[in-house]
Amino acid sequence: MSANMKSRTDTAMAIRQLCRSGAITTATSGMAPGFVQANLVVLPSAFADDFLRFCVLNPKPCPVLGIAEKGSPNFATLGEDLDLRTDLPQYLVWQDGQLTDNPNDIIKYWNHDLVAFALGCSFSFEEALLDEGIELRHISQGKNVAMYRTNIDCVSAGSFSGPLVVSMRPMLPQAAIRAIEITARFPTVHGSPVHIGFPNELGIKDIMRPDYGDAVEIREGELPVFWACGVTSQAVLAMARPKLAITHAPGAMLVTDKRNATLAIF
Amino acid sequence: MSANMKSRTDTAMAIRQLCRSGAITTATSGMAPGFVQANLVVLPSAFADDFLRFCVLNPKPCPVLGIAEKGSPNFATLGEDLDLRTDLPQYLVWQDGQLTDNPNDIIKYWNHDLVAFALGCSFSFEEALLDEGIELRHISQGKNVAMYRTNIDCVSAGSFSGPLVVSMRPMLPQAAIRAIEITARFPTVHGSPVHIGFPNELGIKDIMRPDYGDAVEIREGELPVFWACGVTSQAVLAMARPKLAITHAPGAMLVTDKRNATLAIF
Repeated sequence: MSANMKSRTDTAMAIRQLCRSGAITTATSGMAPGFVQANLVVLPSAFADDFLRFCVLNPKPCPVLGIAEKGSPNFATLGEDLDLRTDLPQYLVWQDGQLTDNPNDIIKYWNHDLVAFALGCSFSFEEALLDEGIELRHISQGKNVAMYRTNIDCVSAGSFSGPLVVSMRPMLPQAAIRAIEITARFPTVHGSPVHIGFPNELGIKDIMRPDYGDAVEIREGELPVFWACGVTSQAVLAMARPKLAITHAPGAMLVTDKRNATLAIF
Repeated sequence: MSANMKSRTDTAMAIRQLCRSGAITTATSGMAPGFVQANLVVLPSAFADDFLRFCVLNPKPCPVLGIAEKGSPNFATLGEDLDLRTDLPQYLVWQDGQLTDNPNDIIKYWNHDLVAFALGCSFSFEEALLDEGIELRHISQGKNVAMYRTNIDCVSAGSFSGPLVVSMRPMLPQAAIRAIEITARFPTVHGSPVHIGFPNELGIKDIMRPDYGDAVEIREGELPVFWACGVTSQAVLAMARPKLAITHAPGAMLVTDKRNATLAIF
């Protein structure tokens, strides 16, 4: 395929530019296949050290893919011509722990004291699962993945503490085994599952009532498989109540130039 | 530790010599820790090609670790000073598919037309699981592992066909996930599980009534995890009814000079 046959949504940089121009304002699922998409967390520098420590102590929910220099709006290791203030479709702005805005860029909120983090996202391992023909029910039904706050506490760091949030994907046993093998290869995008089989062990009372995302049916003969989820970082951010925090809006991720396949550790 | 502090059961060659002299006639579980133990299958050469094809087509139950030259009683790649006619504690002799003898050596049955196969054994991956502190119920209760004939047919090859036999280990979900990750690294000793969760999906009507080995309790909150089992080869051998076939007796394995850690693929 010659370069000019590529659709403009085939490459990461093209997606970022379409976000920057305002042409893309929606979720990025399925865009720029093969490229890593990342969760975004932006914090005042006074919170950055504790947040980084939180991420390092809780690598399954909060795997760090990139950290920007204080005041810098780009991730040197994640993309060429990348401006995290404009290159995501939609953002959430949190002030004192309250959601106050969901703009399409954060130019007016930016200041030289902010530190940005890019965290791994399940889209990367989902692509690896789909590549092997494993059905992901939420995708085949056009839903968001079901997510739950659990009774498992993250390791706390400074003002950052809170429950582990997990995503759930129902699978037949053989698919579940293969999914564990596959996702174990991707530690920087949540890695292998944290639980399989018993929602009540995680403090989930009703699997059909997720705390975030959409309910997804578990069929006869399927096991619910639970992965640590990046929403954990938003949950602990809200509790830490920094004066200002900015994250991506759900599903509206930072599309990077890194390829999913390069995240595999073997 | 100096060499002369090693107990005489610490090394594989020492175990083989004790079998050869008749000093060991029992199961080899726990002997020569760190060394690979293998299933033994000996067949007339007319059956060898089909059996090898059967193993290659069914690598999870029948992973080939070694094949001897026709008429040769040693596995060049598996040990120094190794005589498979004397170096196992106990053998089973099958004639026309019927079990006819269980001698401590097979000198009197040996002839120059026989071909010997060494197949991987779950002892290797169990050691890796125990090293990580994963409880193996049958070991902590001093039982044999529970094994079941399933409703899954092996891929047949010539006269060799029959059901997949599996072993079952009950585990808490997190241990099960880790056990899948660990055993995936060991494809030549059965690899990752073939099933998790629903015995009835494998045609197992009563999990407390295994077809081989001992029943092992599954506690509240545990999942039954099923691995392909080397006993599969004995089950298909019995059905192929060669004039003569010789195998190890259950648990009385060939102890090789190969180290378990070298079987890990990454």
